[in-house]
Amino acid sequence: MTIKIGLLGLGVVGTGAAKIILDPSGRNSLVKDISIVKIGVKSANKPRQIDLPPNVIETDLENIVNNPDIDIVVELLGGLEPARTLILKAIANKKHIVTANKAVMALYGDEIYKKACIAGVYVLLEAAVGGGIPIVKALKQSLSANRIESIVGIVNGTTNYILTKMASEGTDFEKVLMEAQKLGYAEADPSADIDGLDAADKITILASLGFGMQINRHDIYYEGIRGINSIDIKYAKQLGFVIKLLAIAKKVTNNTSEKLQLTVHPTLVPEEHPLAHVDGVYNAVLVEGDPLGEVMFLGQGAGSGPTASAVVSDIVNIVDALKNNRTVSSSLDYINSDLYKITPIESVKTRFYVRFLSKDLPGVIGHLGTIFGEYSVSLKSVVQIGLQKKLAEIVIITYHVDEGSLRAALDKISTLDAIDSIPSILRVL
Amino acid sequence: MTIKIGLLGLGVVGTGAAKIILDPSGRNSLVKDISIVKIGVKSANKPRQIDLPPNVIETDLENIVNNPDIDIVVELLGGLEPARTLILKAIANKKHIVTANKAVMALYGDEIYKKACIAGVYVLLEAAVGGGIPIVKALKQSLSANRIESIVGIVNGTTNYILTKMASEGTDFEKVLMEAQKLGYAEADPSADIDGLDAADKITILASLGFGMQINRHDIYYEGIRGINSIDIKYAKQLGFVIKLLAIAKKVTNNTSEKLQLTVHPTLVPEEHPLAHVDGVYNAVLVEGDPLGEVMFLGQGAGSGPTASAVVSDIVNIVDALKNNRTVSSSLDYINSDLYKITPIESVKTRFYVRFLSKDLPGVIGHLGTIFGEYSVSLKSVVQIGLQKKLAEIVIITYHVDEGSLRAALDKISTLDAIDSIPSILRVL
Repeated sequence: MTIKIGLLGLGVVGTGAAKIILDPSGRNSLVKDISIVKIGVKSANKPRQIDLPPNVIETDLENIVNNPDIDIVVELLGGLEPARTLILKAIANKKHIVTANKAVMALYGDEIYKKACIAGVYVLLEAAVGGGIPIVKALKQSLSANRIESIVGIVNGTTNYILTKMASEGTDFEKVLMEAQKLGYAEADPSADIDGLDAADKITILASLGFGMQINRHDIYYEGIRGINSIDIKYAKQLGFVIKLLAIAKKVTNNTSEKLQLTVHPTLVPEEHPLAHVDGVYNAVLVEGDPLGEVMFLGQGAGSGPTASAVVSDIVNIVDALKNNRTVSSSLDYINSDLYKITPIESVKTRFYVRFLSKDLPGVIGHLGTIFGEYSVSLKSVVQIGLQKKLAEIVIITYHVDEGSLRAALDKISTLDAIDSIPSILRVL
Repeated sequence: MTIKIGLLGLGVVGTGAAKIILDPSGRNSLVKDISIVKIGVKSANKPRQIDLPPNVIETDLENIVNNPDIDIVVELLGGLEPARTLILKAIANKKHIVTANKAVMALYGDEIYKKACIAGVYVLLEAAVGGGIPIVKALKQSLSANRIESIVGIVNGTTNYILTKMASEGTDFEKVLMEAQKLGYAEADPSADIDGLDAADKITILASLGFGMQINRHDIYYEGIRGINSIDIKYAKQLGFVIKLLAIAKKVTNNTSEKLQLTVHPTLVPEEHPLAHVDGVYNAVLVEGDPLGEVMFLGQGAGSGPTASAVVSDIVNIVDALKNNRTVSSSLDYINSDLYKITPIESVKTRFYVRFLSKDLPGVIGHLGTIFGEYSVSLKSVVQIGLQKKLAEIVIITYHVDEGSLRAALDKISTLDAIDSIPSILRVL
């Protein structure tokens, strides 16, 4: 029994997936049962880095999602449209979906899953998060006996590459970004990566799976790495931290109610923490559950090979189900859409790193202490760490405090004559 | 629809699994569908750390595997017998099996899987390797689109705890072992852990899954950590390495034939390698595949919570299949039992670290070089690293060489008058 698939898109991931399927020896024996019927591309005559069977190239993508021969549509277009429309049409035509598209799943996952559930088809998206790291399947299945407490990930390779380079070479953000663009590790328009949007899409998907409720991507607070200064990386290191862009989903119990914190931001990670050593283009996701404790998954988060591996593993899962005549159950065990409330960013409690530039060192430390005290912000350390153009640099690290109180204290502190400026406010894991 | 299970054993893992099943809220919704019908124990009246439903305790284990009400037998006895016999009887009675028993699966996996395949029942063993780390399922499913090239793991928590303590405190093996025994991290009879047998069981299971052939545990070369000296840990550190007990399964292509290397031994791991930072009771498994690249899984490899999490996740998988009326396919995609030949240890090529004690430093280095040259052993470094009781300590690190040639060269070197002894021969990753 051969399962017929149609690919939408033949970029690096599509080419990688097609290569695996066309060369099945030494892999899961079900790979042999996959037949590529059509591949949808924009331009039929573009030279390709792969030998394809005759007549598979198709420029009208609608023809693929409407093709009655095709069992599984593999969407590798990226972006919101036409991806969303094509996925919904394929579902309406009772085709199973495999996708690597985090943006469309983070924004329209709810609609897509509901329609898939009604149509009785699978929607699998292992490749959407963490490249070849099998985190989606682990959250859906292997870890599902647990109560998930937190999911913390380095899920964007571009920003991790840039932060790693900035740390190892002491170079500034703009310069490293340009290098990354030259090497193909950053896009010409890098904003989805750099500004944290890509990581927000991914934590939306992971949190939905881990906490069993559909999460709206618009509920994720996100902040990127444009503001990260090589000075802060240096000072963080002196204090025993590494700066990483973390995507965090965390269940917090307050006065008997359980809420979710969903944030993406640059974070000071203690050097002894397992995520502190995840460097370069590597991704990692740390899951904490009861009674599991901590489990971490690490691997290359992007690139043709890893992502294609995840795409084909999803296809193989569906082939297995279809060959064994299994009933397709709903793709996600939805409990409901408002199982947990989302904590607004002002109420999220965390530790903070704040760097001040001050004109009057002896006077200012007392003032800082007084004002932080007024707003119930407890300080773990206050260090006069350097000098910049006759201004004293002071770095404080707080204990856990809600963001609103910290911001209010800083607003008041910034009115002090002795304070020149507050160049950096970062969160600490 | 309720799925009825019988547990064999109510030690730490059995108790942990029962706790999860009896308290299902906030977990995968299928946990609610599991009903514990019987729990087999040695002594009915022992006090338990859990409130159990009435009449579940059973002291005749045969009654559980023969009970017609039970759908799944969960074997948590450990050891070879009566575990093997009970598993085979349960299979003959068409019961699905979930087991955490690496020893029985490493030695009798072939027999058990074949009988299960004929009976049409599942045998799942996620808990047998890596506690709560979902590595078994990942190798069977998520990574199976890949050609697996190597599996390298720290899969024994006891030895990793001991080596980590020896490194951080500079303490000798015997003292740390006694401490570990007091803390419950090592058994009263620690030999299965310390001598590498437990790790050999586990790599047998992982390699069977990863390379798609039934591997015989007797084909694994294993060596434990009793011989590891705190001096070697210190010197390894000076040279940029950490000593870890690694279980290694690796496909090697030689002159068009593909063979497997299957070894367990203490290994010098470069400090920048991801496994070098896996400390204490943590386990980690690094899988390399084509086109995936590297993926690492890290977590607590033992203990009630993590292992129970893996046991219940296997039960949930079977519940899912039974509820959705799925056909049970064979538990393993066996290709055949001699897909790859196993390389004998003499022919395994690796790098080596060797420490010599010498009476005559100026003369001996030339001799070493000459003899290694005769046996085609290339040296990467020769360092006179310390002094012990007027004897010079020399440490060499070789390039890749087959073990047989190295041993032959060392046999000849040990006959030199200038060589007092060769206290350490370790492999380097």
